Amino acid sequence: MSGVAGAAHQNPSTPPSTVGILGGMGPAAGVDFARLFVRASERWLRSHGHPVQDQAFPEHWIAQVPVADRTQALRDPAAPQPLEDLATALRRLDMLGARAVAMSCNTAHAWHGALQTRVPGVELLLIAQETAAELRRRGIGRAALLATQGTYRMGLYDEALAAHGIECLLPSEQAREWLMEGIYEGVKAGNMPLARSRFVDACQQVLGLHGDVALVMACTEIPLALPDAPQAGGWTLIDPSDILATALAQRAYG
Amino acid sequence: MSGVAGAAHQNPSTPPSTVGILGGMGPAAGVDFARLFVRASERWLRSHGHPVQDQAFPEHWIAQVPVADRTQALRDPAAPQPLEDLATALRRLDMLGARAVAMSCNTAHAWHGALQTRVPGVELLLIAQETAAELRRRGIGRAALLATQGTYRMGLYDEALAAHGIECLLPSEQAREWLMEGIYEGVKAGNMPLARSRFVDACQQVLGLHGDVALVMACTEIPLALPDAPQAGGWTLIDPSDILATALAQRAYG
Repeated sequence: MSGVAGAAHQNPSTPPSTVGILGGMGPAAGVDFARLFVRASERWLRSHGHPVQDQAFPEHWIAQVPVADRTQALRDPAAPQPLEDLATALRRLDMLGARAVAMSCNTAHAWHGALQTRVPGVELLLIAQETAAELRRRGIGRAALLATQGTYRMGLYDEALAAHGIECLLPSEQAREWLMEGIYEGVKAGNMPLARSRFVDACQQVLGLHGDVALVMACTEIPLALPDAPQAGGWTLIDPSDILATALAQRAYG
Repeated sequence: MSGVAGAAHQNPSTPPSTVGILGGMGPAAGVDFARLFVRASERWLRSHGHPVQDQAFPEHWIAQVPVADRTQALRDPAAPQPLEDLATALRRLDMLGARAVAMSCNTAHAWHGALQTRVPGVELLLIAQETAAELRRRGIGRAALLATQGTYRMGLYDEALAAHGIECLLPSEQAREWLMEGIYEGVKAGNMPLARSRFVDACQQVLGLHGDVALVMACTEIPLALPDAPQAGGWTLIDPSDILATALAQRAYG
């Protein structure tokens, strides 16, 4: 048991910053984002030659808060809106000492600007920018966007991908309906076989139309089901949550 | 997309209470505990006829805080002690509105009494009591305890199991060393093959001595590796974390 005694002395010399995860949208996606963050922190420790042990990880707080449906709020201004609940949770993460916060919901980024204005002391990461930069680093020039209707409506990824010279392919209206069904009646309702089936239908249509393009899973529910589908074996699946989690770990250790 | 619009009206009539998870010991175990809590909440919703959707889950905050090693602290009073950091995190969960809190670390329960005294406004669940009650409900009369040296040292499960008439079998000193190696050099250090191998060695010795007994995985790191071992296929593995997560969901909805 020599690994335990005295091991604290081998930690990074500066303790990492506290960071936060704004989740609950849905709760399973929030937990999965936290898993990706822990894995990204472990990668950081390994790549910097530090031992991987409990005390070497950044303090992180995960807020799993019930907030109004984001796509519904974007579609109908009279529907319950998520901004106040998101702002309250973000303020609390700020109060807990978080230097940077990631939101584990793509559609919630519609309120990114309003949230950052209300809580200026925290860096609220931008999932589309982090993803576009990573696609560029990997030399990917064309990508199809798998997302909620809310994310399509606000054009979350369009500008970020364009700014990095990446062509953004959008699925047909039919494929978008399949994605929404897989997200809401599938993952959010705990029906994974339905989710996989609808996601695969949408992807097969996209790949049939555009050939072998990268598929950006730009809704945090999609990676909870699609990668397990046998059909997805040979596809290039990009997980913006994983990219965002890696960016958050870099902020914590940076 | 009829499942989205107006679905909030079908939620449980009383909103569930906010609850907390005191984690980081280690971080992967904390995340896995949150996953079990979300799954337990989903089971609760289903069994009560409520639709499973983001807004129906209890608000929950997960504190992943770096605290001193618990087994080391119990062995050596001069070593860094975890109590102050645990108490700070628990106070913060209280401040965030948590009615009940679960600690995703068995050994940390050595400080349960001190923590509950310092933060009396929160119900801090007891993993050994919840587990013993569940074993009794399942009609299990004998169980072997797989744990850290710290958990053995403080006798965390002994009294709770005895109070429910359950015979508690303790592994040999050699098997305990294998468990510690699997926990620290295995799971906590990200080496899953080593963890599986050591956990299987310990279990095979226990089963060889005592016959087909239930194996209580009384360290939150053990379920992250042992159930994936092919040898564990026919064994009766009990996961106190899953039992505790179910108890926490019941407190939230109760």
